Amino acid sequence: MNSHEMHPNDPRLHSWIDSANDPKSDFPIQNLPFGVFRHVSGHGQPAICVAIGDRILDLRGCQQDGLLDDLAPAIQEACTALSLNALMALGRGAATALRVRLSGLLRIGQPTTRENHRKVEQLLTAADEVMLLPPAVIGDYTDFYASVHHATNVGKLFRPDNPLLPNYKYVPIGYHGRASSIVVSGTPVRRPGGQSKIADATAPLFGPSNSLDYELEVGFFVGRGNKLGHPISIDRASEHIFGLCLVNDWSARDLQAWEYQPLGPFVGKNFATTISPWVVTLDALEPFRVPAFQRAEGDPTPLPYINSREDQALGGLDLILEASLSSQAMRDRAIAPLRVSRGNMRDLYWTMAQMVTHHASNGCNLRAGDLMASGTISGSTADSLGSLLEISRRGASPIQLPTGETRSFLEDGDEVIFEGWCEREGHTRIGFGGCRGSVLPARK
Amino acid sequence: MNSHEMHPNDPRLHSWIDSANDPKSDFPIQNLPFGVFRHVSGHGQPAICVAIGDRILDLRGCQQDGLLDDLAPAIQEACTALSLNALMALGRGAATALRVRLSGLLRIGQPTTRENHRKVEQLLTAADEVMLLPPAVIGDYTDFYASVHHATNVGKLFRPDNPLLPNYKYVPIGYHGRASSIVVSGTPVRRPGGQSKIADATAPLFGPSNSLDYELEVGFFVGRGNKLGHPISIDRASEHIFGLCLVNDWSARDLQAWEYQPLGPFVGKNFATTISPWVVTLDALEPFRVPAFQRAEGDPTPLPYINSREDQALGGLDLILEASLSSQAMRDRAIAPLRVSRGNMRDLYWTMAQMVTHHASNGCNLRAGDLMASGTISGSTADSLGSLLEISRRGASPIQLPTGETRSFLEDGDEVIFEGWCEREGHTRIGFGGCRGSVLPARK
Repeated sequence: MNSHEMHPNDPRLHSWIDSANDPKSDFPIQNLPFGVFRHVSGHGQPAICVAIGDRILDLRGCQQDGLLDDLAPAIQEACTALSLNALMALGRGAATALRVRLSGLLRIGQPTTRENHRKVEQLLTAADEVMLLPPAVIGDYTDFYASVHHATNVGKLFRPDNPLLPNYKYVPIGYHGRASSIVVSGTPVRRPGGQSKIADATAPLFGPSNSLDYELEVGFFVGRGNKLGHPISIDRASEHIFGLCLVNDWSARDLQAWEYQPLGPFVGKNFATTISPWVVTLDALEPFRVPAFQRAEGDPTPLPYINSREDQALGGLDLILEASLSSQAMRDRAIAPLRVSRGNMRDLYWTMAQMVTHHASNGCNLRAGDLMASGTISGSTADSLGSLLEISRRGASPIQLPTGETRSFLEDGDEVIFEGWCEREGHTRIGFGGCRGSVLPARK
Repeated sequence: MNSHEMHPNDPRLHSWIDSANDPKSDFPIQNLPFGVFRHVSGHGQPAICVAIGDRILDLRGCQQDGLLDDLAPAIQEACTALSLNALMALGRGAATALRVRLSGLLRIGQPTTRENHRKVEQLLTAADEVMLLPPAVIGDYTDFYASVHHATNVGKLFRPDNPLLPNYKYVPIGYHGRASSIVVSGTPVRRPGGQSKIADATAPLFGPSNSLDYELEVGFFVGRGNKLGHPISIDRASEHIFGLCLVNDWSARDLQAWEYQPLGPFVGKNFATTISPWVVTLDALEPFRVPAFQRAEGDPTPLPYINSREDQALGGLDLILEASLSSQAMRDRAIAPLRVSRGNMRDLYWTMAQMVTHHASNGCNLRAGDLMASGTISGSTADSLGSLLEISRRGASPIQLPTGETRSFLEDGDEVIFEGWCEREGHTRIGFGGCRGSVLPARK
């Protein structure tokens, strides 16, 4: 079989860009995640791109150089945009067609012309010579609460008598987050100020948060949207998902605990949310789909509008997620970041399709570029907890760093690093790239 | 004193557009609210405008015809934009300067040239010949909960043992709403489907909401934004407010009751929010500022970051608000809408400045065009309740319509109409125009 007959996910494919063939690379030719970049100089307009090994490929350039001439005009035009929104809006088919074409241009053994090969080479840049920007203009950001382990753990801490509320196993609980304060990996995060109240104090005080936390989440971007008033059926939901990224939903636990009743988290969350810059498409993740969460005996069956055989069979994703922590003292002594948890997206109680369908079930319109996030992903074991709140049990059992420092919550100078990847026998590893952020001291 | 020496709020000013001098007009020359319109034909691009009497004045046309030549180039450019965001972003001073100029062009007795007068006449259109569009591209929408009467009334219904939570008098409680589903007055609203659970049922069911409600609110648009990580002090907060509109925060009470814990309202609210098309500037409302809410004895003093002498002295607004209801049967029999409540924005526990400052107190960045809403405005009396939930006490005491029909919540075909205006001895009445929406049956 020739390379040009192979599916873009075929593990036998190799790229003529050597770094993409390193088995440890997040970005083999089977991945081709989309992003938005600008040259480090700051000159020039942002352009959309894909990652391949340690390079990025400029898609506006590809269009301008005629490398995408075989694709529909709308796809070509979307490749010249300043963000991924236009491509997202075209729906899954467009992204699939573009990915097939790019895979063809980048693989070994494709009967591409020498001329095209030369053009592509000119449009590659070392990833460390560009700035990666947020991949889309995010209209609305919705954060779910899809990990039953997380919901139970947090429930125990905040409502010991009533950890998991009666609606949890029926409703994919979610709430609207703040779009304006979503930042891309690498952006420092300022410790927020806010009101908090010590348990036995008579009144709250305003000051810097004393319990700043991260939340390890997976995000997914809406592709084609729906019209206001038109729900999305569970069987069509995945057509509305463009791809996935990593999300750190920074949380100030003291602010959150004091404010969150009755309308939910607000200033405890909306000071910053960090996303990874690369959007890994559902196409690239296809080999890693797994059955939906296995509900415990006695758990209710999902209501029909969020229940489909296909989604139950393949709605989960076997995506490994790691959170690591690095203090200033660790970096000063060149000590590597400490892994504090390893979880897996397959542990989510609700699938992405269930979240999308529930979100639009009342007719709420989703728009291309909207971001949904899973909520903190925790597993059932002590080493798979997706937040410090859970790991330290709200400060009752701090973790120890290699320097001898301890952490119940984040200190100034701490860096939080998320990694995510899929791997499976017989398939090429697909990585997400990192999602990083470090904590700046509160403003005086 | 000549007209050109008079302040734009001076009640002695008259416009050469007769309809603006009708004492019942919402849009006298002292108002000049901003909006966005497009010709009913649908031809041409949207343009920003002001309302004057029964006309609208095209501001892009004013700029192109040189009528704004004396203004700063940035203001002129903002007048050519497709939405108000650019003007909002310039801050209060820009809107003030533009308003002064427009007042000059529209008033009687201003020594404007005959040529200018003729140009302005050409740029006026009858308001009923244009479509009014949402005034801004709304990045983020935040809904507060600033009426202590509403919070107490709702609290009694949902948590009889614990109506007003301990944080209420310290924290201007708010949550993020949905930006995508904000629609402009006149857009029909589809009855949403969703999960609800009858009190003694073992499981929820999915179906059309049985308790669709309105919420009578006031919205305010962010003008100049703040950078991420940079809070806004209470004394600068009003510099970040561009102007006000009316808001109907449609709510499906059955969906909301089942879903809202622990993360707040989601599908119970995000299917639609209706806003009035005109943004009344803080400048126009200046004569109607009143002291902030008089806290009861024993209530805590606001924490210092949301407490300022100036805001306490003039942070309230004497804005009268009315909600009316019209059923299909009433319209069939030409019966006028029934007024179901009359409230006043001065009854809010928190001022707009307190809401803005609290919102940004953790460094959250506000952007020009962001919308904040007050939350349902209810007063202390039975005739000033801002939602059917409160009026009918969750269905326990339905209201009677002139046709003999009763309403606990909204029925299909019902139209909800909000009106708002300021009036005060010695000042010209300032109106908001209406905010209307009617209920379409649930989709099959």
